[in-house]
Amino acid sequence: MPPAFDTLDAFRGLLAALPEPNAAAVAAATARNGQLTKPPGALGRLETLAIWVAGWQGSARPTIARPQVLVFAGNHGVTAQGVSAYPAAVTAQMVANFGSGGAAINQLAGVARATLGVHALDLDLPTQDFTQGPAMTETEVVDALHLGWAAVDPACDLLAVGEMGIGNTTVAAAMAAALHGGMAADWAGRGTGVDDAGMARKTAAVTAGLARHAAILADPLEVLRCLGGREIAAMTGAILRARHLRVPVVLDGFIACAAASVLERAAPGALDHCVAGHVSAEGAHARLLAALGKPPLLDLGLRLGEGSGAALAMLVVQAAVACHSGMATFGEAGVAEG
Amino acid sequence: MPPAFDTLDAFRGLLAALPEPNAAAVAAATARNGQLTKPPGALGRLETLAIWVAGWQGSARPTIARPQVLVFAGNHGVTAQGVSAYPAAVTAQMVANFGSGGAAINQLAGVARATLGVHALDLDLPTQDFTQGPAMTETEVVDALHLGWAAVDPACDLLAVGEMGIGNTTVAAAMAAALHGGMAADWAGRGTGVDDAGMARKTAAVTAGLARHAAILADPLEVLRCLGGREIAAMTGAILRARHLRVPVVLDGFIACAAASVLERAAPGALDHCVAGHVSAEGAHARLLAALGKPPLLDLGLRLGEGSGAALAMLVVQAAVACHSGMATFGEAGVAEG
Repeated sequence: MPPAFDTLDAFRGLLAALPEPNAAAVAAATARNGQLTKPPGALGRLETLAIWVAGWQGSARPTIARPQVLVFAGNHGVTAQGVSAYPAAVTAQMVANFGSGGAAINQLAGVARATLGVHALDLDLPTQDFTQGPAMTETEVVDALHLGWAAVDPACDLLAVGEMGIGNTTVAAAMAAALHGGMAADWAGRGTGVDDAGMARKTAAVTAGLARHAAILADPLEVLRCLGGREIAAMTGAILRARHLRVPVVLDGFIACAAASVLERAAPGALDHCVAGHVSAEGAHARLLAALGKPPLLDLGLRLGEGSGAALAMLVVQAAVACHSGMATFGEAGVAEG
Repeated sequence: MPPAFDTLDAFRGLLAALPEPNAAAVAAATARNGQLTKPPGALGRLETLAIWVAGWQGSARPTIARPQVLVFAGNHGVTAQGVSAYPAAVTAQMVANFGSGGAAINQLAGVARATLGVHALDLDLPTQDFTQGPAMTETEVVDALHLGWAAVDPACDLLAVGEMGIGNTTVAAAMAAALHGGMAADWAGRGTGVDDAGMARKTAAVTAGLARHAAILADPLEVLRCLGGREIAAMTGAILRARHLRVPVVLDGFIACAAASVLERAAPGALDHCVAGHVSAEGAHARLLAALGKPPLLDLGLRLGEGSGAALAMLVVQAAVACHSGMATFGEAGVAEG
């Protein structure tokens, strides 16, 4: 099968023709919701979530039978600036941990009964330090976008995407500042737990990256190429693929939302098929969700990445769909309406 | 087997001898948590939840293999005051719906892989209207407490309790005011969706009930007897039984927390084995959780009852325990610590 795209311009073309939810399914699901055996609105966000899934699945009674969690891993040249509490070697070590089932995401995907796909992107070839030049060439970013695009199971019915990459909260902070405005300090957080001196280096690196690439900051895909990373581009590609498959997506934390922001800034509305799974304890995630207009489902203080918050929130989406599609109506149950 | 108690005083005795969590298991689980392959604290509340379950289960690696959801139903004389948007007959209709699998709690218990037990308490014998006299006799309240006590599966390892009972947000508002102080208007909310005139009747009924029973308001178990209801007493009994079994409990919404408040006010610390599953959209639930010192796990706008919010939050507890007990340590995985 030929690649779905082989240049950034071809990827731009896929952003210009976005499928929309099925309006008839939304209407039918809304009508069904009003007949279920509960007071109107009593299931709160579970009701709007189920109707949203119904629209993307094109069915008044959606199902979630094949959820998929994808985790992408990459390494970052900017770690040379001393921005992380962990050495870059930990990325590969954690990928091995994913493979042997020992990480948090293995357990969380298991609870959500989701298949877990882990993709390591050229871990021995870190991106270029973005304070020195573009993080990736066009070929590199297109390859990463396409790896993510191709990783989505066309038969899945709910997708969560996550990441592992030492240094990538620095990368995401630079992207967020470029895509949504503000200063480095507005977007740089503690990541895996960097100390005060590391925070100062991190903020300085983001500031330097924004200055180095000032000429391209208005182009979201160039922001991804010059300031991003391979695992982040893979998430961007996977989220757009899900849109073309009409598969709803649960967004994870700060880094996944930076990847998603590329699409939203390039084509407003491109994240209508996405819900924010949680708000992370990573400093600026709440700010990033506000910029995207996405209220989170969960707020449990997670700041791990790996898709962990999204996999956890998949359970809420599953519960919402189970209620919507499994409950009896007032008529079926012989219950009096209020 | 003789009943565990047959008077309110005997029940008081069970409140005076409460098991505590296993300190050695808490210490071992805390140590294990610090060795798991993640940055310290990166799983947020999942970490403290897992350690809390470890303490009650007495194991550094707890499991949740037999979760149980109990739903109790009762009818209330105070509905004669016109306090609900639904007729009292809906209680029995919804119990039938629980039996045939058509209610929200059936779907949510299914997602949580929990057994669901439904207990209807004398639906054809509503409690006395508490504006006219005590809701229950001592025999009636003891029978209801004991039904809840006996309904808990001694082999369960996580419990959620919920309720169905037209009019019971009025009952819970009266109990909350009696147990935690404040005026009727501080605790009365819209329930299943009562209109403004109904709200006025509801507030007036609570005020009348508090005045009618002013002499007993300092005794939490008398508050339960005079202002409560059978399904509420059953929840109180079930929650205390769980404590004696060292089974952690996920609390549901406003009414379940009113039932739990009886224990906390009678014996401070009696709810240490309980976590607040969610904060409901029912007006005063947030206030009630604050009075109990229980921050909620979820905030999704639910206001259904039936144990729905608690069953949903069981998924979070299950996820927490799965991570804690299933993840590899840094040593096992060969991952470098930060």
